[in-house]
Amino acid sequence: MRIANTAGRLIETNISGKTYKPFSGAKKYSYSSKVTSLTEALSKCGIKDGMTLSFHHQLRNGDFVINKTLETVKNLGVSNIMLAQTAMFNVHNPIIDFIKEGVVNRIEGSINGVVGDYISRNPLPYPVVLRSHGGRWAAIKSGEIHVDIAIIASSSSDERGNSTGIIGNNAFGPISYSQVDAMKADHVIVVTDNVIEYPNKYQEIQERYVDYVAQIDRIGNPKNIMSGTTEITKNPMKLKIAYNCVEIMDAVGIIKDGMVFQSGAGGISLAAMKYLGERLEEKNVTASTATGGLTKLIVDIYKSGRVKNIYYSQVFDDYSVKFIQDNIGMPADIGHYADPTSKGRTIDGLDTVVLGATEVDVDFNVNVNTHSDGRLLHGIGGHQDTAAGASLCIITCPVFRKTNPIVREKVTTITTPGEVVDAIVTDNGIAINPRRKDLIEKINKNLNIVTIEELKDIAYDATGGPQELEFEDKLVGCTKWFDGSVLDVIKKVKGLE
Amino acid sequence: MRIANTAGRLIETNISGKTYKPFSGAKKYSYSSKVTSLTEALSKCGIKDGMTLSFHHQLRNGDFVINKTLETVKNLGVSNIMLAQTAMFNVHNPIIDFIKEGVVNRIEGSINGVVGDYISRNPLPYPVVLRSHGGRWAAIKSGEIHVDIAIIASSSSDERGNSTGIIGNNAFGPISYSQVDAMKADHVIVVTDNVIEYPNKYQEIQERYVDYVAQIDRIGNPKNIMSGTTEITKNPMKLKIAYNCVEIMDAVGIIKDGMVFQSGAGGISLAAMKYLGERLEEKNVTASTATGGLTKLIVDIYKSGRVKNIYYSQVFDDYSVKFIQDNIGMPADIGHYADPTSKGRTIDGLDTVVLGATEVDVDFNVNVNTHSDGRLLHGIGGHQDTAAGASLCIITCPVFRKTNPIVREKVTTITTPGEVVDAIVTDNGIAINPRRKDLIEKINKNLNIVTIEELKDIAYDATGGPQELEFEDKLVGCTKWFDGSVLDVIKKVKGLE
Repeated sequence: MRIANTAGRLIETNISGKTYKPFSGAKKYSYSSKVTSLTEALSKCGIKDGMTLSFHHQLRNGDFVINKTLETVKNLGVSNIMLAQTAMFNVHNPIIDFIKEGVVNRIEGSINGVVGDYISRNPLPYPVVLRSHGGRWAAIKSGEIHVDIAIIASSSSDERGNSTGIIGNNAFGPISYSQVDAMKADHVIVVTDNVIEYPNKYQEIQERYVDYVAQIDRIGNPKNIMSGTTEITKNPMKLKIAYNCVEIMDAVGIIKDGMVFQSGAGGISLAAMKYLGERLEEKNVTASTATGGLTKLIVDIYKSGRVKNIYYSQVFDDYSVKFIQDNIGMPADIGHYADPTSKGRTIDGLDTVVLGATEVDVDFNVNVNTHSDGRLLHGIGGHQDTAAGASLCIITCPVFRKTNPIVREKVTTITTPGEVVDAIVTDNGIAINPRRKDLIEKINKNLNIVTIEELKDIAYDATGGPQELEFEDKLVGCTKWFDGSVLDVIKKVKGLE
Repeated sequence: MRIANTAGRLIETNISGKTYKPFSGAKKYSYSSKVTSLTEALSKCGIKDGMTLSFHHQLRNGDFVINKTLETVKNLGVSNIMLAQTAMFNVHNPIIDFIKEGVVNRIEGSINGVVGDYISRNPLPYPVVLRSHGGRWAAIKSGEIHVDIAIIASSSSDERGNSTGIIGNNAFGPISYSQVDAMKADHVIVVTDNVIEYPNKYQEIQERYVDYVAQIDRIGNPKNIMSGTTEITKNPMKLKIAYNCVEIMDAVGIIKDGMVFQSGAGGISLAAMKYLGERLEEKNVTASTATGGLTKLIVDIYKSGRVKNIYYSQVFDDYSVKFIQDNIGMPADIGHYADPTSKGRTIDGLDTVVLGATEVDVDFNVNVNTHSDGRLLHGIGGHQDTAAGASLCIITCPVFRKTNPIVREKVTTITTPGEVVDAIVTDNGIAINPRRKDLIEKINKNLNIVTIEELKDIAYDATGGPQELEFEDKLVGCTKWFDGSVLDVIKKVKGLE
């Protein structure tokens, strides 16, 4: 069939079995400012009961955005919101009230500190679902989590929504977690306190995904967004553990030209980076790449020329955020870094990672989520992702803390399964996963290698063994492996009210 | 129901009506080099009859990749391939043989020059579908075009597939067209002649999307990838038209601080940029942003401080590619630049664009696809996208060329509908679209404003009017508006064999 389109041309509407739609008119495209208030933005996105709102956590303990958004949601009379944040901190204490008031009734995302403590005592109607950074990205990408409205905190945005965390008074480093939210959410609101001239030169989030730019007074408190201190621990026990991490790396032959490494931002991990930097210098080795979170210690290694690339997804301290403002280097969003459903992740090439633990067990399982009293107090972060990506995954912890054995028969909650944990470095020796015979063979006899059972025995002898917990049937939450399967459930502890 | 997962934990498999999958084991992730031959890569991607292969055109008339790929496809005994390239040049002459041999039987993508000429005489079993840059991006994104294997030429890639066009002996500027192919195609092959150390510092295409890195001897001939010359036309007629483009811009008040502009890489467009640069200087105006293709003329305006941002999607000459190697500025991929299905496009803020035409008509419709003899010889490029995005869309052309009227009653093929065309600047005066009464009112009386009918009359008087074409029913192709609707059909001209 032929019909005339509005340009006056006769058009075949079916060609070789395919349907062709006739032109029906053109219009000029233009833009108008997307800047509005948070209330307006939420209203225009059709906020309603039962929706899922997502957030990133890069403002950390200085974040005003989650609380402010939920207050606005509450004022709009909306309830039963599911939160899909990447993490939560003590600054989010008001969420406890939002839960009590019914504004929030589900959480799929990391919860740390006071909110975790509250939920451990007062489970939500639905269990909290904890995922790793990469696991969360994959869950949003696949639709396992459907985000209705993505709320993306930005330290600078232009009026069209080109947004960044790199510049502005509340700079926190490149926005790394929210690209998948921006792409998959039905609606996207950038929240900023700094609307700058178009075009924003940094734009981890681009206007193509943004519906509204909600301007608020302050997105956060810079003192608590970035860690001000760049000093490392003076605790000799921790320093010894850190030193032994580097000893193991060296023993198994990882410290060589082209090395790719990562460490967390905890005390022992930072100290390990200091020793690693020194060892690179001593051995005249140039590493290829440092991945993960950027700290002064990594920047200093980079400046010394001992690592060629900083391929970072987070920025942890003031020093580093100022550094990347002048030297952008290679930011990697979380999908690039750790999406397990992709065809290649930055962390798949990790030679080694140094990670912490609240508990480890004789099967090399690691717990970073719950304390030994059963309270859910921490998220997974990149723990699973990097453990599985690194050739040598090193877990650091003391054998016991006060009266609590850290090395034990069974961890309270499995965060990262023993299958991907290679070495546990403690103040009482180093245990190597028996699966890694290749490592055991390489290791210098001078290192104090012990079995994990020996470490457990030391812990039990010193403490009298673990506090036995009794659980109710009620679920507080569950930990998922980054492939979406359930690793463990977190149940309410009897007597914890 | 509770079952034990492989980590030994009892897991609820159904919680509040949702199914939870128990953990079934973890494994270490690692990477292996993706570098292989083009034959191996295509075989491993399961190349077979009837598949759609996509390509970008940024190697322009120096491209070896399309021909080399089709030769490999042919050697693998595969036929009836659909090509979904972003454009095609005379270097792609061998495609005529691939069509004759049945290797290729469909094309959805821009065809220029010799292949267009051949198809105009020998239509394919399916009409060629022509889309704008933004329209193609949207068609791939929506699945209107399903790409089986995306072939992405890269001037440097690391072994994991992090790829760029910015560095390497055959550098052509940032890869801008292929991100959507990388994301949506079933399989992705990066083709390069330069495998560099991991991690590639430039990575417009990231490893997360790449299946294979096919290493070939040479991806192209640098002489024909970039335009060596940065000189502008000396033709006084063209210079006059170019000068009048700037006169119009000035007359309607567009040349002011914060201006956003673009122009093509044709002779008149380049000359217009020279005059615009001078006018910015004279008026002491600082423009905000130049979008689109980068040329020496734009770089020079940027260096002079008269435009703050170069927000580019292509790089046209040697001078500019060297410039961006040192000053990356703001590359914008085609989705950011022109995806009509996005929530905001770079070009929606264009104050003005200067574009060419093979024909225009009294309804202000523009043809850039066919010549007046009916042969399909050019693609759409960004013509539609920028015309609709710009507040002032200026089309430049002579009133007639030799014996052929360029301003005419009806264009042979509609590329860009008159609804989004604002001014036609010719060697015989300037016609303003009557829809734009606002422009007409603003324009200085010194400018030679005429009606489009007057221009047509001049053309017809000088040439005796257009050659009338007789068409067969057979379709050569069709032009789509960037919303996916059919603007026009291109039929085979009787007698053109």
